[in-house]
Amino acid sequence: MQEFSYLNGQILPSEETKIHVSDLGFLRGYGIFDFFRVLKGRPVFLQDHLDRFEKGAKQMGLQVAESREKLQDIIFELIRLNPNELLGIKIILTGGYSADGFTPAEDPNLLIIPKPFTFRDSAAGLKLMSLEYRRDIPEVKTLNYVTPIRMLPKLKEMRADDLLYYDQGLISESSRSNVFIVKDERIFTPGTAVLPGITRMHLIAKCGGLFEIEQRAVTLAETLAADEVFVTRSSQRIQAVTQIDDRVFNRGKTGKITGKLQEWMMREELTLQDAY
Amino acid sequence: MQEFSYLNGQILPSEETKIHVSDLGFLRGYGIFDFFRVLKGRPVFLQDHLDRFEKGAKQMGLQVAESREKLQDIIFELIRLNPNELLGIKIILTGGYSADGFTPAEDPNLLIIPKPFTFRDSAAGLKLMSLEYRRDIPEVKTLNYVTPIRMLPKLKEMRADDLLYYDQGLISESSRSNVFIVKDERIFTPGTAVLPGITRMHLIAKCGGLFEIEQRAVTLAETLAADEVFVTRSSQRIQAVTQIDDRVFNRGKTGKITGKLQEWMMREELTLQDAY
Repeated sequence: MQEFSYLNGQILPSEETKIHVSDLGFLRGYGIFDFFRVLKGRPVFLQDHLDRFEKGAKQMGLQVAESREKLQDIIFELIRLNPNELLGIKIILTGGYSADGFTPAEDPNLLIIPKPFTFRDSAAGLKLMSLEYRRDIPEVKTLNYVTPIRMLPKLKEMRADDLLYYDQGLISESSRSNVFIVKDERIFTPGTAVLPGITRMHLIAKCGGLFEIEQRAVTLAETLAADEVFVTRSSQRIQAVTQIDDRVFNRGKTGKITGKLQEWMMREELTLQDAY
Repeated sequence: MQEFSYLNGQILPSEETKIHVSDLGFLRGYGIFDFFRVLKGRPVFLQDHLDRFEKGAKQMGLQVAESREKLQDIIFELIRLNPNELLGIKIILTGGYSADGFTPAEDPNLLIIPKPFTFRDSAAGLKLMSLEYRRDIPEVKTLNYVTPIRMLPKLKEMRADDLLYYDQGLISESSRSNVFIVKDERIFTPGTAVLPGITRMHLIAKCGGLFEIEQRAVTLAETLAADEVFVTRSSQRIQAVTQIDDRVFNRGKTGKITGKLQEWMMREELTLQDAY
């Protein structure tokens, strides 16, 4: 079926969304993006994602040409044009067509790309491989994924699903998700130098009735000694981590608390008024 | 005048070199590049640049579709089609059109983009601003320049031309050049965690008759206490650094040894057989 995307003021067939190679996202990785799911026509946590997108643009000195209202109109028009039960929408803003190949242009390039989406099996736990690495500008969702992509062959060789970044003994995040550890029924997650994940935010703010989540420095050592580890990610909600390097958690099964949070998150996402 | 570029097997007008937004260089900054000058139709240090490009591709798990001979043929054809006294040629290889937006495609995208080029005034010294930062995969010329581009407004505010990266007290490089310091007529440059610059390589290998250049760890403190500081860069050869932060070198003028090396480099570039 024909898919449609948005590029700088125009809606066009997705196969025609091409940019000139002087784009600074292409030449220098200079840009940001965000990603959210659309469930039966309703974007999940849309305002939160647009908040983060607009904030990231500001942090990178990039102007979002369209107002929040206009962005929403475009997104809903794209949802109408791409009728799918489950859709993933990526919104990208780059430094634009640069005259000298280094300096951002006056006008950034703005893209909104919807694609049919499928969930990974949520029952299957993730295996992470630890890597000493610190993301540049971790608080912003930039286009730079050079390190995790370069590690893909290594991940495959180790039969791992993703990386767990640590620096000077402290964990930060996975390549595309936030990390939480559970110890003695308490939950901890790094509070600084991580992407401000939307699922993470909702979990910390609203699952207080069930559990308390403390934001503080988390060492790699205590992560490996935890009872449960899980990650959050807009595209996959909450996923159990069943192995990090050689350490297997819960005999490879989703832990009790992780399971409860998964259920809570499903309900939260489906019932929250501000989710849409 | 009409300019021509190369994209995946085709030579086409430069304004038509567009790539689909599923390109992994665009979506994730996953790719490498190289850049060399062409003086009156003769590419400077071409084999060195292609050596580095091919090595970088291997380090990133990317296949260069064309043989060395074919690459050279394309480059010389582009030089013929873009007749300029001075040309800068950029050669880019990305992870290709990715099916899932994260995994490199079977076929990378290969681009060769020539552009008319002008030298910066070599008499004008550079002012650098120190920044605590370490490049990911410094030995490879990846597309990730998020941090230096983000710092452009700050550089402008400080009236600085470029950054000087340091990490844990040791300098590494500038955002687009290698750094050398001169103390008591001896020259030092960091030997690890820097881009293997082509100008740097020639300088270290061949100016031994004039001076000795030692590769070793260089602290930020000794850089600030140096007699002279200079940077090397394929696009600008050798440039004096006349200021770092508040520290002015040589009353803002090009130092004696830096000047001698600049002259040596000019001759080297013009006379070397293997330059072309």
